[in-house]
Amino acid sequence: MHSMHKLIILSNLADQYRVLIEEAHLPDLIIESTPTQDIDIVLGEPSLVKNALASLPALSWVQSIWAGIEPLLDPALRRDYVLTNARGVFGGLMSEYIIGYLLAHERRILQKLEAQKSRQWDDTDTGSLCKKTIGLLGVGSIGADVARTAKFFGMNVRGYTSSSETSADVDSYYHGNDLLDFAKGLDYLVNILPNTKDTYKIIDANLLSALPSHALFINVGRGPAVDESALLEALNQNKIAGAVLDVFENEPLPTEHPFWTAPNLLMTFHTAAPSLPEDIAKVFIENYILFNEDKLLQYQVNFEKGY
Amino acid sequence: MHSMHKLIILSNLADQYRVLIEEAHLPDLIIESTPTQDIDIVLGEPSLVKNALASLPALSWVQSIWAGIEPLLDPALRRDYVLTNARGVFGGLMSEYIIGYLLAHERRILQKLEAQKSRQWDDTDTGSLCKKTIGLLGVGSIGADVARTAKFFGMNVRGYTSSSETSADVDSYYHGNDLLDFAKGLDYLVNILPNTKDTYKIIDANLLSALPSHALFINVGRGPAVDESALLEALNQNKIAGAVLDVFENEPLPTEHPFWTAPNLLMTFHTAAPSLPEDIAKVFIENYILFNEDKLLQYQVNFEKGY
Repeated sequence: MHSMHKLIILSNLADQYRVLIEEAHLPDLIIESTPTQDIDIVLGEPSLVKNALASLPALSWVQSIWAGIEPLLDPALRRDYVLTNARGVFGGLMSEYIIGYLLAHERRILQKLEAQKSRQWDDTDTGSLCKKTIGLLGVGSIGADVARTAKFFGMNVRGYTSSSETSADVDSYYHGNDLLDFAKGLDYLVNILPNTKDTYKIIDANLLSALPSHALFINVGRGPAVDESALLEALNQNKIAGAVLDVFENEPLPTEHPFWTAPNLLMTFHTAAPSLPEDIAKVFIENYILFNEDKLLQYQVNFEKGY
Repeated sequence: MHSMHKLIILSNLADQYRVLIEEAHLPDLIIESTPTQDIDIVLGEPSLVKNALASLPALSWVQSIWAGIEPLLDPALRRDYVLTNARGVFGGLMSEYIIGYLLAHERRILQKLEAQKSRQWDDTDTGSLCKKTIGLLGVGSIGADVARTAKFFGMNVRGYTSSSETSADVDSYYHGNDLLDFAKGLDYLVNILPNTKDTYKIIDANLLSALPSHALFINVGRGPAVDESALLEALNQNKIAGAVLDVFENEPLPTEHPFWTAPNLLMTFHTAAPSLPEDIAKVFIENYILFNEDKLLQYQVNFEKGY
């Protein structure tokens, strides 16, 4: 007979998660409302989990509600538990976000609106995604979904990745020192990389200079991947056509930050792909079934690699 | 031996068309620069072709550069020739346009921009195309492409059509008197219908009232399909969430028209799917080969039906 597992949910949406998990009638599971000595499972937001780590001696597994788990990577924190993050659920929303902003750029949606405001019949032609080249920095599960969507619209797809070449929708893969070759001739550069020491400021002045001046840069990965000063200079000097930023080195972006008024920069305040409780609860439930059968969990984070 | 055919190109882009057609080395074809008594083929913009009809006694075939051929439907004009229009080339651009504006709506691109202008970290959630219901008024070759794209993004697709049910990407077809049933519960209504007496003001107060208040209306078909007063009232009274109009009853839209400043209305000045010479030349070349072999041409217009 299985022993019982005890779960605590650390989230602003804990009530929603509790209902979704209770509906699944998972075996051998008790959901606790307050921390107890024998809680072995946490489902939660990494920032809240971080503060609870010291008071959970029996902790065995943490399922993160977010994709990004930076708060738990602090080397001063314990690592004697299995950490899994939210994965496989953001691809659709990320693809919609990226295609939405690429089309806003190509169809000149903001310029057409300006023409409308001044009652000008602006019938100048607009652009298309078809036959354009998109470069994906990072080809994990999100990148694979974006690649599939880009192929649907007839784009050429390049992928820069540390290792995996698992998506067949990527036309050409680049690695390691190929970064500037990867950037050359891109119409769109999209960062989907996690935040690690290897990705810190990977989008720097060199990379931005390698892009054509008509290129659009989109960051849906993590803010620290961008050298913000270099990006600001590239925008101010029209070295690239524009940028769409969902993430920033410091969030919320400080009120005095020059990004707020930088030319051709659109920002979206970390909303590209929200963690929806229905999606994340499903990830937890699938993983719990594996956990309860002593099987390997999905989406395990390697503390050393940071993703 | 074949007799020679003589072609005149009536377009602002005649030089581009001439180069593209000459490159195809079509048999038995002479391209004339000025109207002559023995010209039997015209490739051109319907408004220019209309003025030339009387001076082309040997006319046998007109290939329109546009999809819309209204200028040639005037009952006072001759109809003793085969008229073919541009078809099968606009689907991709139309789909990009529609998805672009649907995503601008769902991702609240304009609202996020307003937040940015006032330095507000607006992290309110945005919407998704997935599981939304789109209704297509008209399911020809463009509608089929839009349906395919909508399915890619996980939408439910309804089609209202006079006859054909050829697209397998349409989940449910509606006909004739089913129009209000078709509209009920739609998240998005997209008009792709041609301009005929049957489609005149088909988008009227009744149809607009049948839509949910969160619905977005997009018109990429023809302006006369919309009762503009009824649409204006629906927008002014927030009966629908918004409209995106590429076409209008009178184009260019008169400066004093109330659409310029109507709430939640975006306009794009008949640019949704331009006739690109490379695309249209290909249609002409394929049809010319059929014509020269006395075969049935593609995309023939029925003068009575008007499409």
